[in-house]
Amino acid sequence: MHGNWIAGQWRAPIEQMGEWQAVDPRSAEVFGDAFPISGRADVDAALSAATAAVQTLAQASNAQIADFLDDYAARIEAELPALAEIAERETGLPQTPRLLSVEGPRTVNQLRLAAAAARDDSWRDAVIDRENGIARWRESLGKAVWCIGPNNFPLAFNGISGSDFASAIVARNPVIAKAHPGHPNTTLKLAQLAEAALQASDLPAATVQLIHHLQPEDGLRMAADPRLGAIGFTGSQRSGLALKSAADRGGALSYLELGSVNPVFLLPGAASADSESFASAFVAGASLGGGQFCTNPGLLVLPHAASAQSLLQHLAQAYQQLPPAQLLSQAVASGLANAISSLCAAGAELCAGAAQSCGPGYKFPWTLLSVSADDYLARSQVLQQEAFGPLTLVVHSATAGQRQAIATGLEGQLTGTLWLGSDGSDNAEAAELGRWLRPKVGRLLENKLPPGVALSPAMHHGGPFPSSVHAGFSAVGMPGAITRFTQLACYDNVGAERIPEPLR
Amino acid sequence: MHGNWIAGQWRAPIEQMGEWQAVDPRSAEVFGDAFPISGRADVDAALSAATAAVQTLAQASNAQIADFLDDYAARIEAELPALAEIAERETGLPQTPRLLSVEGPRTVNQLRLAAAAARDDSWRDAVIDRENGIARWRESLGKAVWCIGPNNFPLAFNGISGSDFASAIVARNPVIAKAHPGHPNTTLKLAQLAEAALQASDLPAATVQLIHHLQPEDGLRMAADPRLGAIGFTGSQRSGLALKSAADRGGALSYLELGSVNPVFLLPGAASADSESFASAFVAGASLGGGQFCTNPGLLVLPHAASAQSLLQHLAQAYQQLPPAQLLSQAVASGLANAISSLCAAGAELCAGAAQSCGPGYKFPWTLLSVSADDYLARSQVLQQEAFGPLTLVVHSATAGQRQAIATGLEGQLTGTLWLGSDGSDNAEAAELGRWLRPKVGRLLENKLPPGVALSPAMHHGGPFPSSVHAGFSAVGMPGAITRFTQLACYDNVGAERIPEPLR
Repeated sequence: MHGNWIAGQWRAPIEQMGEWQAVDPRSAEVFGDAFPISGRADVDAALSAATAAVQTLAQASNAQIADFLDDYAARIEAELPALAEIAERETGLPQTPRLLSVEGPRTVNQLRLAAAAARDDSWRDAVIDRENGIARWRESLGKAVWCIGPNNFPLAFNGISGSDFASAIVARNPVIAKAHPGHPNTTLKLAQLAEAALQASDLPAATVQLIHHLQPEDGLRMAADPRLGAIGFTGSQRSGLALKSAADRGGALSYLELGSVNPVFLLPGAASADSESFASAFVAGASLGGGQFCTNPGLLVLPHAASAQSLLQHLAQAYQQLPPAQLLSQAVASGLANAISSLCAAGAELCAGAAQSCGPGYKFPWTLLSVSADDYLARSQVLQQEAFGPLTLVVHSATAGQRQAIATGLEGQLTGTLWLGSDGSDNAEAAELGRWLRPKVGRLLENKLPPGVALSPAMHHGGPFPSSVHAGFSAVGMPGAITRFTQLACYDNVGAERIPEPLR
Repeated sequence: MHGNWIAGQWRAPIEQMGEWQAVDPRSAEVFGDAFPISGRADVDAALSAATAAVQTLAQASNAQIADFLDDYAARIEAELPALAEIAERETGLPQTPRLLSVEGPRTVNQLRLAAAAARDDSWRDAVIDRENGIARWRESLGKAVWCIGPNNFPLAFNGISGSDFASAIVARNPVIAKAHPGHPNTTLKLAQLAEAALQASDLPAATVQLIHHLQPEDGLRMAADPRLGAIGFTGSQRSGLALKSAADRGGALSYLELGSVNPVFLLPGAASADSESFASAFVAGASLGGGQFCTNPGLLVLPHAASAQSLLQHLAQAYQQLPPAQLLSQAVASGLANAISSLCAAGAELCAGAAQSCGPGYKFPWTLLSVSADDYLARSQVLQQEAFGPLTLVVHSATAGQRQAIATGLEGQLTGTLWLGSDGSDNAEAAELGRWLRPKVGRLLENKLPPGVALSPAMHHGGPFPSSVHAGFSAVGMPGAITRFTQLACYDNVGAERIPEPLR
């Protein structure tokens, strides 16, 4: 049984509420050591240790923070083959082209970009008003940040190595990480690398801590604790909003990335002239990672055109020819089955795939559903719910007015895509539809499928509620993502020797 | 009976739930026309009209927005004598030195600073990544913003003329303003000036709307409506947090400015050498506006020094010599009486003033309470609760350790002040105490009393929970305050003709 990593020590839980082991979703076989589900005394110990470290961490120099992150990145880079192997076994995601070749390097790169932001203080937003003797910039929350990673990115969004983690550390907040229970061995290995990097630094031992797992009620208690400054969470709407409601009671900020259906609108000109190349691009984009991305394009709006019916057939054929998608877990499989039954009950028809998972392990046929725009618009609240995994809902729209109605009826989305023909015939509708779609989505794409989230300072990975809970912040992209875990700190008439050097 | 201002028309409420009139707090006399308490049908009408205006307003040019704000500012400036006269009658705040000479010009200036920010797009935070073809900046929430002003600033924080209002308009969000029921005639006059400015512009009629008053349950329903993008609120914790909880259900962002006790720490060197000048400065600062400021210094921590007892006597004498404070309303008087009874039950002793309001109208004696640090620390949750109005709680601290314990036990505060002696003997403690106080306060002051909130881009008017609900944003200071009412909008691979011109 592995312990939690609290105040620099690996400790058996003070209160053990249960235990679990990893599952290989390719075979459904349980494997490896047991991990503990801890209790409120462990939460208390981690929060106390973090609180005791706040003051020292707040005084850490840019170099101390950046060196730690760079060192951690180098250790991850050196151990990527081993990490990718463990993560593959726990998630079913392939090493290549994914964990070893894409997600691992992305994780390393993200930590290095955070280190660079720590060095150049670019997240500080300093404003100095000499005339009034006032200066302000961003500082630590002065409290712990709880980083809770999702099932689908064991490295790049892990609570102990992802953007939330790196952002909180640059802002000088002690991190308490929570592993997603889908990949505890990957998380443990990352924590050991973080531990080595932390020991090589002179940052406080409680700068990073790890509690593997909690029961839901203890999670809510931790969220509501006034010693907590913020929560960074990527996962389901239900869990996330419950955490936020608890966090609001204690005053912690919540940054939740909750997914969405990421609508794609194919416009008539593109459908007529360019239907096959669109179909290939769509299948290539939608089928990445078994469709298990927050930004997976799950809703495709087709125009009424001679080619639309053949396009649907083309997509259905392509989906039928794909081997069943490897899912991350049994939970994804049962979520999909429920979602399909809910979509069909609301009027969607099955064009490819099935309503049931298959084996070995946890797999699911690539599934395509379709519905008319009238039916969609009559039940859009149900039909726009995310079905996480290898599923696409096609909506047949007859008119530009219907497409506009679909756009205006959308809940907040991480992304939205317009696909235009190259002959200019779609330009007028694209401009008009884009105006309605724009405030509904964090990122608007054109002739490009969304799953990719570039590590760019111009990226926005977030969006209006309920895709996230604060559309003013991005979960990805330095230095912007760092500002989530900061507070404005203003100095009014304070003597030069008592204000941070850059503000003097 | 005055109507609401909905979609450009003054309309009697669709559902009238009650009515009320203004009260002159100097005499307790009711005066003037009746104003309606409206119902949910009126909320629905305002939200529908705002939603219909979103698209046009989002396309408004910088000049359209700035010209409207400048025109509105000029109209307020021209009508300041009349506005100050109405506001004085409704709030008891003096015209000079306050409504006419300070708050009025501040209101005009703030609108002009917002207009300047609209012209220069300084709130947009544009980031362009040419290599990846991605650009992002800040845009409108694409939904209505509800601006709810407090009782204590009828002009500068009014829901229809304050920083929340100006910020939301610059960000292209239609505003639904709610008057504080303490000054409906002032608000009506402001709305008429806004109406004239709006008619002179070509902005949509529903760019600004006014619903005078709602029952609490209808207010919560409005907060939870998914057509609402954000709430800007200044007022009590209880009302604000109830609104936030409702807003979270529908996804609206909440920016609440909820007040605090704004602790002032007098350090031993200053107490020994400079006690009288501190006392004069403190009385001058604390007694402004009847102590009815969010940033009023309500908690004074004195050191153990030979002079501390005489300082307390000096303060008590000064408070006794002040004429009773004119309160804004009966509600402030009863809140004070309750607060004093709660503070005394927790161990505080009355040194000056009384536990009862007095007349004519709503007045209250300047009240000074004191408590030992041990007693304070034993019941700090109760003793640090804000008592809005002419009241100061003095804490006698024996050691630097006690002062540090007081600082670390504070809830989030808008401001915190250190008062140092000029001989350098307080410097070491100031540095250490400042490190603990820093993360607890939005603005740290030194040898300066807090009530003033300069209109500076470096100002931070906000702070950690529960003084506000997001310590990363300031309610005052352009362009920062504008960003509260925006979302990040990212363009990925979007054709140049379909992205905003500055991002091309």
